[in-house]
Amino acid sequence: MALIVQKYGGTSVGTVERIQEVAKKLIKHQQQGVDLVVVLSAMSGETNRLISLANELNDQPKGRELDVLLSTGEQVTIALLCMALEQQGVQATSYTGSQVRILTDNTHNKARIMEIDDSVIRSDLSKGRIVVVAGFQGCDEQGNITTLGRGGSDTTAVALAAALKADECQIYTDVDGVYTTDPRVVSEARRLDQITYEEMLEMASLGAKVLQIRSVEFARNYNVPLRVLSSFKDGGGTLITAEDPTMEQAVISGIAFNRDEAKLTVLGVPDHPGIATKILGPIAKENIEVDMIIQNTGHDSTTDFTFTVHRNDYDTALKILQKTANSLGAREIISDNKITKVSIIGVGMRSHAGIANIMFETLANENINISMISTSEIKISVVVDEKYLELAVRSLHTAFNLEHS
Amino acid sequence: MALIVQKYGGTSVGTVERIQEVAKKLIKHQQQGVDLVVVLSAMSGETNRLISLANELNDQPKGRELDVLLSTGEQVTIALLCMALEQQGVQATSYTGSQVRILTDNTHNKARIMEIDDSVIRSDLSKGRIVVVAGFQGCDEQGNITTLGRGGSDTTAVALAAALKADECQIYTDVDGVYTTDPRVVSEARRLDQITYEEMLEMASLGAKVLQIRSVEFARNYNVPLRVLSSFKDGGGTLITAEDPTMEQAVISGIAFNRDEAKLTVLGVPDHPGIATKILGPIAKENIEVDMIIQNTGHDSTTDFTFTVHRNDYDTALKILQKTANSLGAREIISDNKITKVSIIGVGMRSHAGIANIMFETLANENINISMISTSEIKISVVVDEKYLELAVRSLHTAFNLEHS
Repeated sequence: MALIVQKYGGTSVGTVERIQEVAKKLIKHQQQGVDLVVVLSAMSGETNRLISLANELNDQPKGRELDVLLSTGEQVTIALLCMALEQQGVQATSYTGSQVRILTDNTHNKARIMEIDDSVIRSDLSKGRIVVVAGFQGCDEQGNITTLGRGGSDTTAVALAAALKADECQIYTDVDGVYTTDPRVVSEARRLDQITYEEMLEMASLGAKVLQIRSVEFARNYNVPLRVLSSFKDGGGTLITAEDPTMEQAVISGIAFNRDEAKLTVLGVPDHPGIATKILGPIAKENIEVDMIIQNTGHDSTTDFTFTVHRNDYDTALKILQKTANSLGAREIISDNKITKVSIIGVGMRSHAGIANIMFETLANENINISMISTSEIKISVVVDEKYLELAVRSLHTAFNLEHS
Repeated sequence: MALIVQKYGGTSVGTVERIQEVAKKLIKHQQQGVDLVVVLSAMSGETNRLISLANELNDQPKGRELDVLLSTGEQVTIALLCMALEQQGVQATSYTGSQVRILTDNTHNKARIMEIDDSVIRSDLSKGRIVVVAGFQGCDEQGNITTLGRGGSDTTAVALAAALKADECQIYTDVDGVYTTDPRVVSEARRLDQITYEEMLEMASLGAKVLQIRSVEFARNYNVPLRVLSSFKDGGGTLITAEDPTMEQAVISGIAFNRDEAKLTVLGVPDHPGIATKILGPIAKENIEVDMIIQNTGHDSTTDFTFTVHRNDYDTALKILQKTANSLGAREIISDNKITKVSIIGVGMRSHAGIANIMFETLANENINISMISTSEIKISVVVDEKYLELAVRSLHTAFNLEHS
């Protein structure tokens, strides 16, 4: 009998009526002869409500107590879903993270799962019960409640699927799969039937925020087939798996983009070892996340160094960089906070030459100037003026024939 | 160093501001050199909110899942109180019932505490921390979450005080102690400084609903000094302890009453063994709680049998009784749903003759007819027409000089 782990997010369990819908869907799946383990998030809005209660009492609540507080959100939904299932005559049992038990390290608010005890779940499944597990939470070795951080329920689902050697881990969400690009930008954007973990990782980190990136990594590490589906709409969704060498891969799977980027360049910094950390160290200290980093070959014993940050961090980053540039004796800083990053992603590009050139040519034909280029094995990213974002994405979508499978 | 267990009810932690008030109060106590273990209820209204969510999904939710749901209420308040304490610079740690651990039997929704592990609490106290425990909940041997039933937080507090051999268990509530009678009926009603467990049990069961009756039993069994105080008003409250033979006891401690009673009498039932169970068995089967039961000496081989029930159960009880009376060949049923029960309570009556007579004389002087009398060692109850309730209570309060200590 197939064993499926299904995860439903906060919107899918946001009201009593939606919980009833989830129950109906589960019963239909069970009747098709599937063993089901269900992972739930808190009702949408609940986690934020609890956080603001906490902040009224303490501007920096301790991680341990915040986890005790936040973990109640999922504990409510798992009990409610079991009640909805029992009302329909289907036996179900709920488990908190501590009860399963999902053992984590003790990094409160962003704990990492270390081990899952699958014995109670297996025993319940063997009795024909649906098992409902609270996402996002676990406990450390001392029995303290921990949480996995935002989006942690996806990780719970994948980790459970790995521990149970489930046939598939299905993430039900409010989108019906992974698209070749954002349909709001390109109306011809097409849902992908299948995509590799690596492609999904590049898509996710580049802004297609369908899945928590950690859960995709987890799925890849344990080779768990992961499927993204809609809670509200029928359809097969997108299956995320390891690369299948026997399958013909599309050269390019999708086009991702980050809207709100800003770039900062220091010109004429001394070209010697340790310069990157001297520039980026002070930035990291302020908890500013740096996205692209580019340093070209230097000349005249100086070099130019560029990095991009989120637009919200632009002012702070610029101030820090000015200090650094002074102390390094750099020539000049140039910066632009109206840029955007567009990336094409596909495992197929490894075996196909000339992909980069098609990208550059396509943008050139539209008179879009490329100000930065960065590449990885399965991704090419370019930075362009933000006013060209839509044009760039649309023309690339057509150039790589993404509207047709 | 004195060790005190303090329990705060739902109203005392009903808002963020009130939680801050509780934190301030705790810090003041700690600064006076007291080790503190705090037991909390859910925010007022929260348990009812959760129950109605449950009922929207299932008209008879399973006990296990209801407990998973309801136990979140206290989990929220314990985390919030710890945050409030830490904000004031005082170290505090929260524990759910499962974490302590408070081991119960597996009777969901009204579990009984079997054992408490005091090791983590003691270790925290020795480090100068305030320990905050979720009331109302525990877990069974399999780790399933259980709850103790309405008012169970009082029981948690007393059980913890017993396990920790605390110097006192203080129940903070919205009244400032136990009164000689209801101040809404007798404005001269006086707060009692001290009362025995036995008196409190009689007071509680008779309608002075200050404390959960189970928690008073528990306190008596383990000889835990129990104090009822106000969360909102300073004062020493009422201390409930074992009888102190060296102390001069007031003859009567208080006057309790039950407003909404109804009485049912079967006349002329055959006076032979098993008649009581034949009459009350069918009543109990319908889950109707019977309060007073009176059977007088029979004559002519028949007897008259009377019992009282809550007025809400009157119609059902009457219907059941009519069937029973027919099958027993009883002569007649008479009933009255406009009665009230008034009781005087005091351990002192054991050593003082004539107390009953003062009661009867007082009522006679006011022309109040007594329709039933029932006595225990420390209590005399009479049933009178409900219209005489206030008059009866006031005249007895004066007759026994309760307005003066």
